[in-house]
Amino acid sequence: MEREIRTLRAVEEMRSFPAKRPLGFVPTLGYLHEGHLSLVRRAREECSTVVVSVFVNPLQFGPGEDLARYPRDPEGDTALAEEAGADILFVPEAVELYPEDFKTEVRVRGLEDVLEGAARPGHFAGVVTVLAKLLNIVGPDRMYMGQKDAQQAFLVRRMIQDLNFPTCLVVCPTVREPDGLAMSSRNVYLNKEERVAATAIPRALFAARDTGSTDPDTLEKTVREALHLEPLVSLEYACANDAATLGPIIPETREVLLSLAAHVGKTRLIDNVLIKR
Amino acid sequence: MEREIRTLRAVEEMRSFPAKRPLGFVPTLGYLHEGHLSLVRRAREECSTVVVSVFVNPLQFGPGEDLARYPRDPEGDTALAEEAGADILFVPEAVELYPEDFKTEVRVRGLEDVLEGAARPGHFAGVVTVLAKLLNIVGPDRMYMGQKDAQQAFLVRRMIQDLNFPTCLVVCPTVREPDGLAMSSRNVYLNKEERVAATAIPRALFAARDTGSTDPDTLEKTVREALHLEPLVSLEYACANDAATLGPIIPETREVLLSLAAHVGKTRLIDNVLIKR
Repeated sequence: MEREIRTLRAVEEMRSFPAKRPLGFVPTLGYLHEGHLSLVRRAREECSTVVVSVFVNPLQFGPGEDLARYPRDPEGDTALAEEAGADILFVPEAVELYPEDFKTEVRVRGLEDVLEGAARPGHFAGVVTVLAKLLNIVGPDRMYMGQKDAQQAFLVRRMIQDLNFPTCLVVCPTVREPDGLAMSSRNVYLNKEERVAATAIPRALFAARDTGSTDPDTLEKTVREALHLEPLVSLEYACANDAATLGPIIPETREVLLSLAAHVGKTRLIDNVLIKR
Repeated sequence: MEREIRTLRAVEEMRSFPAKRPLGFVPTLGYLHEGHLSLVRRAREECSTVVVSVFVNPLQFGPGEDLARYPRDPEGDTALAEEAGADILFVPEAVELYPEDFKTEVRVRGLEDVLEGAARPGHFAGVVTVLAKLLNIVGPDRMYMGQKDAQQAFLVRRMIQDLNFPTCLVVCPTVREPDGLAMSSRNVYLNKEERVAATAIPRALFAARDTGSTDPDTLEKTVREALHLEPLVSLEYACANDAATLGPIIPETREVLLSLAAHVGKTRLIDNVLIKR
């Protein structure tokens, strides 16, 4: 059966599209890479209709962040999404999603101001607000997100459950370059030297995991020390949390989320590993 | 055709109910009166399935408010809802809607801290959060609310539009007792003397409307002076706003919302009138 991807831009067009169920949905900021495409392929395996959205959501960028220069490639995205099996590329316009009198905010209280949320005030409110909108517009049975944005997946799952959205969140493993660097649209910002230096990030995380310890101090210290050796990488935070709560590790913790943010030159990257206990 | 109302309590039961479309939804705190029933009848006229929810939402009551003593009458509600044409009474449990790890909040920023919102901090966040949940659980095509809670209707409409819920909000006129008092479950709190005194509230609003003025000072002063004559009624606020924005009245204002809150004994009542310009 031949497929041809359709690009929809208007909310009403997307809403009224006669999708076959189950409908799988992959929300993205565009500039698609293998990480996104792994989500699209998984959705294709599990769903009758696959929708990929491309929307650089201004609400989740803080002042001074890279909203204006965030990489974009509409033609590349279309070709890649189609090849990975998407039926629809939904490319809404900011002016339609956020009209002048837009005033509603969705927040996951208490969990949005740790880790990435502490570093990026308002970021997660922007993420869960736009996803509440997209869930209502697209109406998916299953939504696919990557483990690379661990806290995002955690908060979105909480929001879906708390607001009773009839959608199941599927979180897929981080896809990495052959040298270990987690796929990210922001990797394009790195120059050659920085790109090499950035591989220290996954190496540090793997080294911590390979200690066999699940003690937060040991894990964090291992990451810190490993990255300290790489002059082009400046660690912002490295933190070990209970993966089930994002809170501190306690005797009952069954899985540890070791996550970090680091600057490589001017580029801010995040990564994480899960460690069973 | 004989109808028999069904009472559903579990979220999953409600969600999977095979409703015929369009589905009309009347969310209530229970203790149904003619105001609610006018919404149910309107839904019955316009929809193939009519769902009435009864949930005294703890999230929208502040500390010191009347959550614990809010009037309840499950049997009366069932009989009245059935008589008015409801197919389903959805009576969720707080423990299912708000599990211990519940953390999500929906807010309509900037409009929740004026009028009723100023008097009841957190109230409207509680209202729009529970309605976002109920919209996802019930999945109505049309939701029916009363004009008596004018600011509530305004904020819920904003939330529905902002979050792209596929639901149309229908706001129905305030239903009044023969002597003018707006129907409210809280009227049951009034003793005989207070009940008589409370009729000064709609009289004051009608007197302001009947001045023929749409000047906010004139309208507010008329209400203030009229209620000042009734010793059992203590005015909390009377405010004239642009009905389309809830902001101040400006040259472009086409309809004025004149709203008030007043205490009659220990009972806090609200009411409003719309005045064309």
